[in-house]
This record gives sequence, C-alpha cells and structure tokens, in this order.
Amino acid sequence: MSTYKAPLADMRFALFDVLDAETQFQRMGFADASRDVLDAVLEEGARFTETVLAPLNRVGDEIGCSYDKASGAVTTPPGFKQAYAQYVEGGWAGLVSPTEFGGQGLPHAAGVPLKEMIDAANLAWGNFPLLSHGATEALLHHGEAWQQEVFLKPLVEGRWTGTMCLTEPHCGTDLGLLKTRAEPQDDGSYAVTGTKIFITAGEHDFTDNIVHLVLARLPDAPAGSKGISLFLVPKVRVARDGTLGGANAVRCGALEHKMGIHGSATCVMNFDGAQGYLIGQPHKGLMAMFTMMNTARLAVGLQGLGLSDRALQNGLNYARERLQMRALSGAKFPDKPADPIIVHPDVRRMLLTCKALVEGGRVMGYHGALLVDVAHHASDAAERERADALVGFMTPIVKACLTEWGVECTYHALQCYGGHGYIAEHGMEQLARDARITTLYEGTTGIQALDLLGRKVMQQQGAGLRAMLEDIETFCAANAGNAAVAEFIGPLREQAAQWQQLTMKIGQRAVADADEVGAAAYDYLMYSGYVALAYWWARSVAAAEASAQTQAFKDGKRETARFYYARILPRTLAHAQAIAAPLSTLTALDADAFDA
Amino acid sequence: MSTYKAPLADMRFALFDVLDAETQFQRMGFADASRDVLDAVLEEGARFTETVLAPLNRVGDEIGCSYDKASGAVTTPPGFKQAYAQYVEGGWAGLVSPTEFGGQGLPHAAGVPLKEMIDAANLAWGNFPLLSHGATEALLHHGEAWQQEVFLKPLVEGRWTGTMCLTEPHCGTDLGLLKTRAEPQDDGSYAVTGTKIFITAGEHDFTDNIVHLVLARLPDAPAGSKGISLFLVPKVRVARDGTLGGANAVRCGALEHKMGIHGSATCVMNFDGAQGYLIGQPHKGLMAMFTMMNTARLAVGLQGLGLSDRALQNGLNYARERLQMRALSGAKFPDKPADPIIVHPDVRRMLLTCKALVEGGRVMGYHGALLVDVAHHASDAAERERADALVGFMTPIVKACLTEWGVECTYHALQCYGGHGYIAEHGMEQLARDARITTLYEGTTGIQALDLLGRKVMQQQGAGLRAMLEDIETFCAANAGNAAVAEFIGPLREQAAQWQQLTMKIGQRAVADADEVGAAAYDYLMYSGYVALAYWWARSVAAAEASAQTQAFKDGKRETARFYYARILPRTLAHAQAIAAPLSTLTALDADAFDA
Repeated sequence: MSTYKAPLADMRFALFDVLDAETQFQRMGFADASRDVLDAVLEEGARFTETVLAPLNRVGDEIGCSYDKASGAVTTPPGFKQAYAQYVEGGWAGLVSPTEFGGQGLPHAAGVPLKEMIDAANLAWGNFPLLSHGATEALLHHGEAWQQEVFLKPLVEGRWTGTMCLTEPHCGTDLGLLKTRAEPQDDGSYAVTGTKIFITAGEHDFTDNIVHLVLARLPDAPAGSKGISLFLVPKVRVARDGTLGGANAVRCGALEHKMGIHGSATCVMNFDGAQGYLIGQPHKGLMAMFTMMNTARLAVGLQGLGLSDRALQNGLNYARERLQMRALSGAKFPDKPADPIIVHPDVRRMLLTCKALVEGGRVMGYHGALLVDVAHHASDAAERERADALVGFMTPIVKACLTEWGVECTYHALQCYGGHGYIAEHGMEQLARDARITTLYEGTTGIQALDLLGRKVMQQQGAGLRAMLEDIETFCAANAGNAAVAEFIGPLREQAAQWQQLTMKIGQRAVADADEVGAAAYDYLMYSGYVALAYWWARSVAAAEASAQTQAFKDGKRETARFYYARILPRTLAHAQAIAAPLSTLTALDADAFDA
Repeated sequence: MSTYKAPLADMRFALFDVLDAETQFQRMGFADASRDVLDAVLEEGARFTETVLAPLNRVGDEIGCSYDKASGAVTTPPGFKQAYAQYVEGGWAGLVSPTEFGGQGLPHAAGVPLKEMIDAANLAWGNFPLLSHGATEALLHHGEAWQQEVFLKPLVEGRWTGTMCLTEPHCGTDLGLLKTRAEPQDDGSYAVTGTKIFITAGEHDFTDNIVHLVLARLPDAPAGSKGISLFLVPKVRVARDGTLGGANAVRCGALEHKMGIHGSATCVMNFDGAQGYLIGQPHKGLMAMFTMMNTARLAVGLQGLGLSDRALQNGLNYARERLQMRALSGAKFPDKPADPIIVHPDVRRMLLTCKALVEGGRVMGYHGALLVDVAHHASDAAERERADALVGFMTPIVKACLTEWGVECTYHALQCYGGHGYIAEHGMEQLARDARITTLYEGTTGIQALDLLGRKVMQQQGAGLRAMLEDIETFCAANAGNAAVAEFIGPLREQAAQWQQLTMKIGQRAVADADEVGAAAYDYLMYSGYVALAYWWARSVAAAEASAQTQAFKDGKRETARFYYARILPRTLAHAQAIAAPLSTLTALDADAFDA
C-alpha cells in the first residue's frame, strides 16, 4: 500500500529559504501571509491530506466513479464526498480567493504546497476542487457584477464546483473547430447546445450545483478561433437575483473509462438548449479562457510533482527494507541475509533521479506560482510586466517538465520494486497510471513546446527568456565568491549561454521555414527545463548553506545537486544535438511512407 | 479500438535482406528452412495472429483471468482457450522444437517473427505458450531419457504447458535466498514444499496438465545460490511410464492484480509435498535455469518490440486521420477543416522515434535469435563459440533496450492521440500498461545492465563486445566505397571506438572499486543499445539498397536512418557523460539522508 507524508521540511525550504516567499508576500501587501499563518496552513494541510485524502486514493482507483444512465447522475467513490465536505468545512476551497467573496485572501503561491499535497495524496479527488479555481478566476476577471455576486460566493466557499467545457469530439487542441452554439434569448440569456467531452468533474455528488464554463459560438460568430464566446451554464438554473430554478438542460451522457484517475469523473456533457450567460465580450471567449491558462497549467505541473514525490517516498521506503543481493563492493549488512537494495548504485541512480527532479522541480513549480502573484500584485508596473513575461515563459516549461518527470519518476520508483511494482496492492502502478494523464491534459507536452517556442519565444521576442537569463546571471555574479556553489557556477553559466545561442539559431532557421519551430520545440522545451533546474539546484545549494538548516540537510542538497549536474544535466547534450539536426530529418518522409 | 497488421514486408526484410537468414539456415543444416517454407509460416502466422489473437486482446484486458478459491481453478478470458486449441491444431506449439519429439524442427530464429506477431496481437495470451518453451529447453538439455519421453512430447505438441517457478515472496533477483525445499522419497521422486509467486500460466484451463519447473533446495544443500536444484512438478501426477495419476499437491493460491496483461494468469503457487523429479544434477539447478535465460530474455525483448510496433501502427493511423491545426508552414490540406496531425513536425518526431526503434530493434532482436541458432548449430566450433559469446553479450542489450523502447514507443504513440490516448476504447493505454511489465520480468533493466557489464564484459573479458566491434568494423570496411551508406560510416566508427574506450575506462575504475560497475551499468547498457542500433540501421540501409525492394522502401530506410543518427543516437552523449561522473555522485548520500 502506497503511503504519503507531506514533505513539509522541503516545502518550507523551497518557499521560505530559496524563494524568500514571506518577504515577497509582505512586499506585495499580503499582510496576513506571515510565516506563522503559512506554517499553520502547511501543518493543517498535511494533516488533512495525509489522514483524509491519502487513505481514499486506492478505493478511488478500485471503485472509481459510476454513472447512472437513467438519471445521468454520477456517484463518486466511497468517502470522496465526505472528504469534500471536510475540505469545505476547513475553509480550504477559498484559501487563495479574495476575502470579499468569502475567501481567505492568501496569495496564490501560498496555496501551492497544499495543491501539491492534495495531488500527491489523491490526484483523482483533487480534480474536483481544481476546476472550481478556473471558474472562479474567469468570473473574477470577466464576470459582470451580478454574475460575481450570484456565482462567485458559492464557488469560493466550495458549496458549488466549476468546470471548463472546451473539448469536443472532433477538436481538442484546435478549438477553432468547435461547433457548440449559443442562441440569444429574449431575457438576455443564451440557449447553449452541443456536446463537450473530457469534462473533469462535469457531474458528481459533492454539491448541489455545478457551474460549467462553456466555449460556444454565437450565431453571428466568425469562423475559427476568433468566433468563440464564453458562457456560464449552471447545472441547476440560477436567475439573476440568485434564485435557484429547476434543472438546466445539461446532462452527463457518459463517463470515460480511463487508464487512471478512476476517482475523477471525466464526463461527456450534453447541452441541449441549456440556459447560459455570456461571460466577457462576444467572440473573445478564447482570450478569456487563456487568462486562466497559466494557473491551470502550473497546477497540472504540480500534479506531476506530487505524484513524483509520493512515488519517491514509497520507492525509498521499499529500497531501505527490501533485502536482495550483496553490494558489489562487499556486504554492507553482513548480519542480514542480504543487503537492502538501496546499497546498489543503480537503485540509488533511480532514487536520486527522482529526488533531483522532485526537489528541484518543487522550487521551479513554486517559483512559477510566486510569479503569478508578482505579475498581479507587485506595486511596480515594470516588475509586474517582467513577472508576467517570465511566468508566460516558464509556464509551459513547468507544466511539461514536471509532468514528463512525473511519468519518469513514477517509472523509476516502480522499477525499484521489481515485479512487485506491477502488482496493484503496492500502489505504485496506480501512481504511474495516474501520472500518465498529466502530459496529455491542459495541452500535451507537444503543445506546451509550441507555446514556449512559437508564442513565448518567437512571437514575444524572448522577453521571458531574457528575464530568466538575467536572473541566472544575477545569481552567478552574486555568488562568484561563494565557495559553497563554486562548482556549479561555471557549468550553469555555460548552459545559460548555450540556451541563448540555441534560441538565436532556431530563430534564424525559422525565418526560412516556420516548420523549424515545430521541429525544435520539444527538444528546446526539455533543454530549457534542464537548464532551469540546474539554476534552481544551484540556488538551492546556496540557500541551504545560508540557512539555519542542519548539516545533513545541507549535505543532502549539495550531493543531490552534484548528482543532477553530473548525471541528469548532460541530457541537454542530446537535446541540443537533436535541435541542430536538419528539418529534413522530420519532414523528408511522405505521410504514406511511414509504414515499413 | 487498436488494430494490428503483421508487418510482413519488414519482417522479411530483416530476416532475409539484412540478416541473410535463409543462407544461414541452410549452412547450419536446416534443410527444411527454405524461403518458401518460411514465407508460408509468416503468412499463416499473420493470419492466425491478426484474426484470432488480436481481436481477443481487449477482452483479455477487460475481463482478465478469474480465480475460484474453492477449487483453485483459473478461468482464462473468453476465447483464449479456443484460440489456444487453434494454435495447437495449427502445429504452432512445436514450430522450432526437434522433430523427434513431434516438433517441426525449424531453427529458433524462424520462430521469432511469429513470436513478435503473437506479442503484438495479444501479449497476455502469448505468455501461456511462452513458458512451455522454457520447460522444453530444460528437458532437452538436462532431462533424463524417461523424462524427455514422458514430458517432452505433450509439451512440444502443446497438449500440456510449462512454467518456470523461481520467485518467492522474499526473493526474486537474489535466488540464493530461496526456501522451497525438496525431500527425497523412497521411489526416487521428491516431495516439494514451498510458495512461489509471480508464476506466469501457473494455472489455467487450456490444457489437462501443467509441467512446473521448480527451483528448490535438497536437505543437504549448501547455503546460497550453490544449493539450488531444479525439479519438475506436474499438476497431475505422472509416473515414470507416463501413466497419469491423481492431482498433485500443487495448487494456485491466488491471482495477482496487475497493472496490465490481465489476460495472463500470474499465480501464487503453493507446493505442499508435491511429487517432483530432479532435473539435471543436484545443486546445479541455477545453472540449468541459466541455460534457458538467453532465449527467455530475448523473447521478452520481442514482447517490447511487438507492443512498440502495434502502438506505432495505431499512432500512425490516428495521425493520418485526426484533423487538428494547420502546419506552421501553411495549410497542407486547405480543402479540409484542418490538417491531419502527421503534418506537424513534433508528431512526426514521435512517430519516427517509434519507427526507428521498431525497425532497427527488429533487426537487432532477430539477429539475437539467429545467434542462438549459430551458437548451437554452426558446424565450426570457433564459430559456435564466437556466436555464444556474442549472444551472451547482446542478450541483456536486446532484452533491456527493446523493452525500455517498448515503454517509450507506447508512450509516444499514446501521446499522438492526445487525451483520447488515455481512454480505454482506443486500446493505446492497454499497450502502455502491458508494456510496463517487460522491463521488470525476466530480470529488470538494472539486472540486465549488471549482467552485461559485470558478467558479460568484466568477467568474460569482453569477448562478446570484441565480436560486436569486429562485426561493425567488418561492415564499415566492406562499405567504405558504398555511397549509399557513406554518411553513416564515419559516425558509426566513431561511436564504436568510443564504446571500446568507455568499456576500458570503466574496467580501470572497477579495479579500484567494484561499485563502479553498478554505477555505470545502466548508462553503459543504454549506450550499447544505441550504438548497436546505429550499426543495424547502417546495415539496413545498405541491405535495402542492395535489395530488390522498391525505391519508396529504400527511401524509407534511409530517411529513418538519418533521423535515428541525427536525433536519437545523440542520447549516447548523455549516457557517456553519466558514466564519466564520479562514483561519489551515487554513493555520497547515506541511505537515511535521502529524505529532504
């Protein structure tokens, strides 16, 4: 059985020692976000996720959600609903929402360790409250006053949940193709008709109402992605004065049978002239949706991180207990029938890979969240703008890398178990199956790569990359005389310089053929992730040394950084070479010549 | 729904054009293994696997095997038993077994494309006949005359199946720890008592009897791996004259719940004084088992290959049909609402990665099988010895790389589907789950790596590596003036030279500390696999050019080879750097200092 213990010490280290979040929060005017308050949130969050959510992870997988065709109702796994009630009661739903709508007004980054804990403890369960966040943000940024009044408070309090209805059977990435339509009604509402698929938490038994955010076309909409509007469609009809009406014409038509996250309801949603309200401007729905994209994608990155950490924790426990073979250099525990497998260098390679990707990834992920706060709340406009560019640049990297590493770490940790890892009772294979969704939804890794290179680098002239390179150089310069990180500064500077050069070269090639962007995108993304992680590892070592952490903690950070630089960072060599390959290596073959 | 079409054209190309198998078979005295016969085997194998096995793949996953606690019986998924009857009827069971025991006497390598087809069509089903092969080999090489007489014929005919009972709850890799014991009886048989786990096809409803090969300890056995003997324990008791007795004291105690291969019965087997017969010499059971290891491991490599190919076929079909977005360089199909996703370079990257690993891996896997034949049947002793060293060296590479690539290819192909890949109905997620077992059983990738570097390279003074490097140099020298492969010869020679140097350096470091072997093993294994594949890709291009294949086929091979050299082979850079890292990067941290 897979266990979970919230890694509070490392979470605090990432947040307070490396990122200096407390100072930042205070600077941004979050007076309540003191270290004491945040520590209490972490402690309580750990208690809730370890004791309430984690024990439900397996039953969620085994029993899953069930669908009643007659009523269209979805029943969540045993215990899920009660856990949600505790979540609402504990005030977790509105942790980072504005106080004026019943939230606790903490900064976004203060909610991120909780998010990681929830995902590690029970990813499937975590998908129910997750989507409320998107609906809340959409209403905050684009909702009319009455819409905020009527819909925001129940969402923030967790009495209702939200969804994001984008995908249709024939279109996911390419939303310009979507067909769901919205007809204006005399009362100012819209009748929404169409079929949406892959709707997370589209139907469930947690709450009495569900607020669907739906992308659809108005009758006069231009074709393509410029003709998409955003609508709010509640499960139970709600009048402008907040009065509840009867059931709306929206119904769950089926649940998908998935590889994992069985406890998460992935619904086909049928809208059949359902009453909806326009959110924001006509035909500007995709833009409104995009404003939610950064936080949603960063959130999925945290899912990869949480699963990686849980996998690592269990792999580590198993490797310390499982006795098998002797160390090649001689028995380490001669009194036992065999040595614990953690003595074997190859088992350590797998565990250290996880440790390096988890702890480094944690800083990277939390930093992304902190940038969201800075972009919104810094007093200085230039600082906000810089943070906005940087978070835009880092978001696809965080999303794609933390989820790709989630797949990798759940692979390694399972591998430590040998054949036992393949057996359900240990819980490792569930982590691997659950992790597999994270590189797909909220935009596949390939889509993140195109977003990074095509949009964030090429279209925006690399403002985010420049900011990142400045940060790296600032750190390197400031630590030029710091013996604790001297060994990392040289390689880091070299990688950063190559990052810039690679980017320029791709830019030059893209002038000749736009397909060069697509050809380089994936390898550029992964290259970027590994360099960014090298930066965060060097900063982690510096922060540990400068902190009041124990010597063992400092040693752990330094040795893991050494492992990372020596054994993981060289992956950049392969990615750089792949980027340098001619475009023809991808385009020469005709589509019908792929079969042998 | 995932489909499968046996890739006969490429199978023939690998076997006949690249490996020149027909000539080799004839040289080894397999008079019946003519091109005509082998072509007929391929055609019939394709028909059987495509129409009988492939359609049962999904039901096998969905329904799986079930266990009746009262009787200890295992029921296989609907259709599995009938498919096995067809398999036996078609004479497939004894395809490569000696004619004297009812087999068809074809060479081992002639059965390998069939094996790949079975694995691609229905991996779980394929595990039932697979294990009979191990039992057959054990009896052929180590059985007494009466044992061969009584047990071999029904195994070869497929009337009975076999198992290999090695693992116990506390020991898998480290068989020296095993506890199952065998007490000599007055009639010369043994009473076998103990619990074995992870026994593939340990119980089922295909046949009336099952022949278990069981590792156990005699009462006077020395401790550790030198005190293990091999026993044959039938499910239904069999006297020395072949008379069937009653039920033996062996019973399936449970089925494991696994991540995948649900149609394969993975059994806990309880032996409670079961009647068994000693196979081979007392205390030499592990050696006898090891003689089966090469073919069993090569067979698991083919499982990775088969799944990769099926995943690629489906990913390719989807990528040609799914319309989403326009090519960055401009619409390729302006008359359609969007371009098929195969126009996108990043989708091509994923598909070409699969294609390069599948088609190159096919030649590598088939070559391993051919070496098994040469090692047994070549007329020249030196040639047999060389083939034996080479197959010993290549076996862990083939097993580990083809299965790691199986995990990778099923990942990429699923990724091409986006979110749809995560949904059961497309069948892609089953391929990914099924593939996940292959890097675990028959020795994890880490164990293959230790076998390669520790045993095959260090202990055996690199005879296999030398033979491989000779083969590469022979090819390079012979093709020095061949314009068709000129672009590959230089890089291949360079990689081969580095391979040798890396090996020497590791050897030097291992003198100082044996843990250096474990530290380098995984990266050395993967490095070796990529260089070996570079060799097979260069040979494939040369063979295609020299063949009567179509120009399109030749182009396909050349362009895929270019892709491989430019975009996959650079992974060796990262592996070489990891190998160069100091041992301390893996050993510095105390086992209890891994937690952050």
